[in-house]
Amino acid sequence: MNKLIEQALLYDFYGELLTKHQRQVYEEVVLNDYSISEVAQASGISRQGVSDMVRRCNKILEGYEDKLHLVEKFVHIKEHVNQIRELTHSGAQTEVMRQIEEISTDILEEL
Amino acid sequence: MNKLIEQALLYDFYGELLTKHQRQVYEEVVLNDYSISEVAQASGISRQGVSDMVRRCNKILEGYEDKLHLVEKFVHIKEHVNQIRELTHSGAQTEVMRQIEEISTDILEEL
Repeated sequence: MNKLIEQALLYDFYGELLTKHQRQVYEEVVLNDYSISEVAQASGISRQGVSDMVRRCNKILEGYEDKLHLVEKFVHIKEHVNQIRELTHSGAQTEVMRQIEEISTDILEEL
Repeated sequence: MNKLIEQALLYDFYGELLTKHQRQVYEEVVLNDYSISEVAQASGISRQGVSDMVRRCNKILEGYEDKLHLVEKFVHIKEHVNQIRELTHSGAQTEVMRQIEEISTDILEEL
């Protein structure tokens, strides 16, 4: 998986376990793609401080995934539900198929 | 949801974030239904100590769910996938239906 997508997923699942300050800095650097210098200036900490914080956040988030494997589980389920949705577009378009398509779309929106 | 099922689900999702000692005591009391006295005797801590630890573990696990809502999310997805599987048993039993049924069963086993 692309490193940035992985970071975004980990943050999406476990970000609430970081402190508010960590979340602010992490979002600016990783999700909103501001430079280390910009975030350092805006938040009044050193560039080294920002770098260290992002690295530490990544370690924390990866630590949760190593223990809980919920992102892995979720990615796997998403693939399966995608398969179901694709299958509903093959074969006869019955009312049952339409309902299955609708539910699988709902699940994918929630995931 | 039944309190015991809820505890078991929370433990299933977040149990790895407890210490090994907490997990041992929690499993004996909550999942394996041993009495507080039996667990106290077997683990060499007081009955009060066992009670406190179980209460504390529940608080920790609920605290993770309050922040992450992952059990809630997965329970909801499970309901949806169950609906899909039930739908595959209605209407014509085509090859596509059989495949959807199989995938939904796989997802439910993983959840």
